[in-house]
Amino acid sequence: MAVITLTTDFGTRDTYVAEMKAAILSITPDVHVIDITHEVAPHDVLEGALALEAAAPWFPRATVHVAVVDPGVGTARRGLVVAAGDQVFVGPDNGLFTPFLGGLSTERLGPRVTDPVLLAWPRPRVAGSRIGGAVVHVDRFGNLVTSIPGDALASLGSSLTVRVGARSLPLVRTYGELARGRPGALVGSRNRLEIAVNAGSAAALLGAGRGTSVVVSRASKPRAGKRT
Amino acid sequence: MAVITLTTDFGTRDTYVAEMKAAILSITPDVHVIDITHEVAPHDVLEGALALEAAAPWFPRATVHVAVVDPGVGTARRGLVVAAGDQVFVGPDNGLFTPFLGGLSTERLGPRVTDPVLLAWPRPRVAGSRIGGAVVHVDRFGNLVTSIPGDALASLGSSLTVRVGARSLPLVRTYGELARGRPGALVGSRNRLEIAVNAGSAAALLGAGRGTSVVVSRASKPRAGKRT
Amino acid sequence: MAVITLTTDFGTRDTYVAEMKAAILSITPDVHVIDITHEVAPHDVLEGALALEAAAPWFPRATVHVAVVDPGVGTARRGLVVAAGDQVFVGPDNGLFTPFLGGLSTERLGPRVTDPVLLAWPRPRVAGSRIGGAVVHVDRFGNLVTSIPGDALASLGSSLTVRVGARSLPLVRTYGELARGRPGALVGSRNRLEIAVNAGSAAALLGAGRGTSVVVSRASKPRAGKRT
Repeated sequence: MAVITLTTDFGTRDTYVAEMKAAILSITPDVHVIDITHEVAPHDVLEGALALEAAAPWFPRATVHVAVVDPGVGTARRGLVVAAGDQVFVGPDNGLFTPFLGGLSTERLGPRVTDPVLLAWPRPRVAGSRIGGAVVHVDRFGNLVTSIPGDALASLGSSLTVRVGARSLPLVRTYGELARGRPGALVGSRNRLEIAVNAGSAAALLGAGRGTSVVVSRASKPRAGKRT
Repeated sequence: MAVITLTTDFGTRDTYVAEMKAAILSITPDVHVIDITHEVAPHDVLEGALALEAAAPWFPRATVHVAVVDPGVGTARRGLVVAAGDQVFVGPDNGLFTPFLGGLSTERLGPRVTDPVLLAWPRPRVAGSRIGGAVVHVDRFGNLVTSIPGDALASLGSSLTVRVGARSLPLVRTYGELARGRPGALVGSRNRLEIAVNAGSAAALLGAGRGTSVVVSRASKPRAGKRT
Repeated sequence: MAVITLTTDFGTRDTYVAEMKAAILSITPDVHVIDITHEVAPHDVLEGALALEAAAPWFPRATVHVAVVDPGVGTARRGLVVAAGDQVFVGPDNGLFTPFLGGLSTERLGPRVTDPVLLAWPRPRVAGSRIGGAVVHVDRFGNLVTSIPGDALASLGSSLTVRVGARSLPLVRTYGELARGRPGALVGSRNRLEIAVNAGSAAALLGAGRGTSVVVSRASKPRAGKRT
């Protein structure tokens, strides 16, 4: 069975998601239709793109990801098919597929798209021994997902501290290194720096939310050892 | 694979929906079980019927729609199987299937039902050059779905205006004809007149909700041309 | 098609549930993946266990129930596979599977677990002609699910009354025996005593919630007849 995923800002109270599934099953019954999320904030294209970035890599090859988060529904704007890695993305050309647009657009379905709309993608600012970024997503547990990729930390060396607002947090490898109720930073499964509290909400404890500044730097007294 | 849909007021926090799916899969594993919605307001039979009306037509032939929105759960009341078009509806005989009861009830499953419960279905009032109706559903985006069928507008001719409360809105064909943030009326995919704001909430902008009056009439200076 | 269920506290706004489904479908595409619930309150292991207890029995034999409600995610703690009845449960060893641990743990997958973590399971106190318990779950409709098993009532004889706070309620067999808007107690499909209001919310009417005391006793003037 093939896999088709859906990512929208439709919510689940209205019937729009069911109507999409009905249309899909009317064309091809032999598929798994899997919801990535329908709770993207209305019209928030960046939030939709971050959801796709987090979830898509875990799906089997040849999965088709259909996404609709679109302030311009019903207006004349381009659709886009993106073939990235071994998966396919289908939706509006409004930046929703920005994380995957290093790949090639599919041309057999129509003229090749050479100028897709791209979002101002949240990227970290690297400056000497510091990396500055921001919170891009707060999850249900109050974990803070940041714009700082885990990869970027290696260049800073070891003994890093992470500042969120006025607070300095340790960089740990797993939640388990944190005492219960204590905050820390770690690199999550999506290769982004995340701020978490063991058995608590980092958003609540730190008063942080989307857009809150996050800075990684060497701890004031760095040790000689390198992160491996 | 056959398709069975579920429409309930059960919500998704409790396990009732999962219990229904378990029962279905215990009888026949070779089906797609698709949620239409489980967020119908508790006991709101009309809202459930409107959800079915919106979603059912998009499903493949032979789809079985199981629906439970029922203030009388556990009491002695009839169940109903409705064969309408090429689909089947199964649930309580409390008006939930009102939109489909032009079809025939299935008799092989038991005595034919000649007196199904019908809801007072929200219908427009046509009076000369005006059609009066009301908002029947507010969706997640604040779009207002009305009791006025798109079909009914043709009889009024062209150059129509739509009054919602004290405000007169243009009738357009797509969202794209509206400037950003401006309200208008259009006929949606479910053949109902809907009030929308391009990239905004009509409910919020117009202070409207379920029950708000909506009136369509000829614009004060009609042009000669006919809608085609 | 095999059936795998998911029970978590992940919610459906984030992509964690989709990531689990992606992982499952990457291993074995030929399954139904069914959500039991993802709205368990964050870290509330007891609520997760109660959801599993309610839903699991309705699933086909050989269903695999995967559950994650885990304050200790990312820390070193045991995983657990429980074979109970003809179903299998997979998740953390933190008490989530307490209702099923009369069964045997599976040993072919690793060392047999002889000391699984068990929750302080809410059980009734039986004292002579009274059974005392508490509300363990409030559902979407305001029905109150209690810690008192329906089985336990037989020992008290017939003509029982149920006290919730200061209020005495009749024990009935179906909602239909209650007048509209009136509260009563009945044994639900999960074999637990439940408090309900016909077409209303028992939680709201009685001001009750999780933890509210519930006592069953013989009515003051018992009749001779036995419940059958």
